[in-house]
Amino acid sequence: MWKPDRSSSKSLYQQIADDLERRISYGEFPPGSLLPSERKLAEQLGVNRSTVILAYAELRALGIIESHTGSGTRVSKYKWGVTPTHTPNWHRYVEGGSFLPNLPFLRRIREVLQQDKSMIDFASGELASDLSPVEEINILMGENHYTEYLGYDNPQGFVPLREELVSYLSQYRDIRTTESSILITSGSQQSLFLITQCLLTPGDAVAIEDPSYCYSLPMFQSAGLRLFRLPVDDKGVRPEDIRSLYKKHRIKMIFINPNFQNPTGAVLDADRRIELLDVASELGLPIVEDDPFSLTAYDGSPPQPLKSIDPIGSVLYIGSFSKIAASGLRIGWMVAPHSVVERLADARQQMDFGLSVVPQRVAAQFLKSHYFQPHLGRLRTHLLYKRDLLIEALQHELPDLVSFTIPQGGLHLWCKIIPEVNDNKLLEESIRRGVIFVPGSVYGSDSGYVRFTFARARADEIRSGISKFAAALRGVLC
Amino acid sequence: MWKPDRSSSKSLYQQIADDLERRISYGEFPPGSLLPSERKLAEQLGVNRSTVILAYAELRALGIIESHTGSGTRVSKYKWGVTPTHTPNWHRYVEGGSFLPNLPFLRRIREVLQQDKSMIDFASGELASDLSPVEEINILMGENHYTEYLGYDNPQGFVPLREELVSYLSQYRDIRTTESSILITSGSQQSLFLITQCLLTPGDAVAIEDPSYCYSLPMFQSAGLRLFRLPVDDKGVRPEDIRSLYKKHRIKMIFINPNFQNPTGAVLDADRRIELLDVASELGLPIVEDDPFSLTAYDGSPPQPLKSIDPIGSVLYIGSFSKIAASGLRIGWMVAPHSVVERLADARQQMDFGLSVVPQRVAAQFLKSHYFQPHLGRLRTHLLYKRDLLIEALQHELPDLVSFTIPQGGLHLWCKIIPEVNDNKLLEESIRRGVIFVPGSVYGSDSGYVRFTFARARADEIRSGISKFAAALRGVLC
Repeated sequence: MWKPDRSSSKSLYQQIADDLERRISYGEFPPGSLLPSERKLAEQLGVNRSTVILAYAELRALGIIESHTGSGTRVSKYKWGVTPTHTPNWHRYVEGGSFLPNLPFLRRIREVLQQDKSMIDFASGELASDLSPVEEINILMGENHYTEYLGYDNPQGFVPLREELVSYLSQYRDIRTTESSILITSGSQQSLFLITQCLLTPGDAVAIEDPSYCYSLPMFQSAGLRLFRLPVDDKGVRPEDIRSLYKKHRIKMIFINPNFQNPTGAVLDADRRIELLDVASELGLPIVEDDPFSLTAYDGSPPQPLKSIDPIGSVLYIGSFSKIAASGLRIGWMVAPHSVVERLADARQQMDFGLSVVPQRVAAQFLKSHYFQPHLGRLRTHLLYKRDLLIEALQHELPDLVSFTIPQGGLHLWCKIIPEVNDNKLLEESIRRGVIFVPGSVYGSDSGYVRFTFARARADEIRSGISKFAAALRGVLC
Repeated sequence: MWKPDRSSSKSLYQQIADDLERRISYGEFPPGSLLPSERKLAEQLGVNRSTVILAYAELRALGIIESHTGSGTRVSKYKWGVTPTHTPNWHRYVEGGSFLPNLPFLRRIREVLQQDKSMIDFASGELASDLSPVEEINILMGENHYTEYLGYDNPQGFVPLREELVSYLSQYRDIRTTESSILITSGSQQSLFLITQCLLTPGDAVAIEDPSYCYSLPMFQSAGLRLFRLPVDDKGVRPEDIRSLYKKHRIKMIFINPNFQNPTGAVLDADRRIELLDVASELGLPIVEDDPFSLTAYDGSPPQPLKSIDPIGSVLYIGSFSKIAASGLRIGWMVAPHSVVERLADARQQMDFGLSVVPQRVAAQFLKSHYFQPHLGRLRTHLLYKRDLLIEALQHELPDLVSFTIPQGGLHLWCKIIPEVNDNKLLEESIRRGVIFVPGSVYGSDSGYVRFTFARARADEIRSGISKFAAALRGVLC
């Protein structure tokens, strides 16, 4: 993002006016389109609102933009020699289509994090840079010589990576499979997208956990699915709830995150796992098992996946590198019956023509390398350390105002705020004080819950982050 | 793909039976699912059909599979202790969803190319490995040290790559833009997918060229769009046709590939460009300009893009590295008004959570490096050489049976077969003889056209490929 140059002899408002005029002339803001509000632009550029007011006044004087009370500031149509019908009504196009926008809370969080790099980040569900194998990947990239062709990839994904995953799944997840049952995807997100778009039909009912990461994903609504919820307690979902949802709504699929569930951290109880598979098999229902966190189990003994005890292939298993290595690689995988993998691979060709070979090769080399196992050990130790820092800080700062169950794996702590609180006010007050998190309602819970991610912030920020949060909470409570 | 080991002491059929039993036990072929036909499996494994018949007989004897006349061979349900209702009806799920499968011709071509590496490939619309900057990319990857974090990327794409593209677009395509008007996508394909899914509504009418690459993309039908065609002559589409399509069908968008059009190679005439923009602006219609081939212009003077003479931002401009560097990088870009870029970036988060940073960084370094410009020069020279080899071969082998216009850029030659011919028979006979191409009907043309890609095959294969094609053509004509 362009920012004005404070050392320039040209005034800030004139620099801003010049930059906007340039952008308008390039078509970034076509005639008739809405410009950012003065407040928002000032925030983006890191200047006073009065500076933006001056810049807009300058452009108005030149006839380049026009402001009308109540409808904001727009690029002038007449200046550019076009009448209203002459430029595409981009607003109408942008409002069209079947993809719902992301939730306002999530858009707000993304915006704040993009603009303010000093924000203490308990919101982003990803690893801090010192938890990612950045150095190892650098070394592998240097060794990583392409002797073969950099052409379009196999629609199911890079064969050597699928072959490495066969060993990985057997060794680490007790899942036996072959490379032809694996589809490489752009993280778990693309697996879920392909399943919701290609295996289900608008109007279909599906079951998700309550609360659930899935609830935060507009893709379910974008696909026209009806969501029904399975309450999660300390032992995960209750299998009998599936039977009653099936009777009432004829659900077509179950989405489960059984190991260190996002956001609650719950682990599905071993007996319930067997019961869940029995119910699914009795009803002929597929289970989508999303398993991104297992290998973060702090004691080094990850819970077994449903897929490893699934004798009849009811489970579509989803894994990813995002939470155990680096989200920026965008490498995930799905293990599924061959007919499903083939169908989804074919559909994916329409969407993006497959993934880049480059990160797939890096991922394959990383899995095969002697770096992988030590990295996992280090990751677990660091996560445990950060979890404990967070818990200590919460207990110190807010001993009587919050309650939580201590997670045994994963990146998140699910925290209940005991007194009644307005989620939006708490979030905005926290942002004002320099700390950000995800309100629990994003995941479909009642208000008054917070998801703290302790993996993203630096260890030395956790204490002060919670202290800022505590101040914000006390601020909105009184 | 697993293949039996011919040096093993275990018989081929027994190896195949063991492998299938293993796959079935892993859930790759769940109870009740259909196994490949004997013919198809034999083709995949490179064995005689009789070997597969023996393997299936072995599994049938063990009760693992069952065959019923007319319904193929399926995994037995009873062996696995489940009744039909107990396993998800994968067939029904796979048939659901809104994504249409790829065209049968294209699926067939992909299958053949995956199975037979010796096939002379005039079908794949991509560069041969010696035309891709594989060595340069190796060097850059080695230098390419990540000092920063490998986290989730900015939703619009990696900022340094967008900044490099601002210079690239100005220098090579005469397009002035800023990094905030650019969206990085997984090739042109993802740009088109985002536009059709997010800016248009099912039932909307759009105009595409006839013949057109777009016609081969089921994504248009998957998005529920009605396609209307603009005939392409030697000078490209005729702008007045747009006015009449608009009157009749209220088209909402125009998709154009003005420079070395795929498949015809046509270049849109300069006067028609201006007229086209005038018509679009008069009707308030956006133009999607797909521009993957311009920099292959053999004379080194690529035609100007519409975007560079678009004063009011009607053009959504799409570019890509696939046809000028390496398709396996999966790097493309769109230049569009800011509101459009923002909307598409937000929707893309739902689909794949953005692109991997790794190939984006490689692409940025390649653009900035001193390798880029010499690579383009070498690419043009090689393509021209291969084009001439193809033309000579056609003139030598089939002087009276084909006609074509000589393309001045791009990877394809669009060839009319003068006598009447059955497309499917010609394709199958060519495959049998070891050469493959794309029948023109895939792009919506009448039967009797062939798209030859001369960029993918090795130079020393072109002559013999055309000689095999000529034999196939003479074979199906008599």
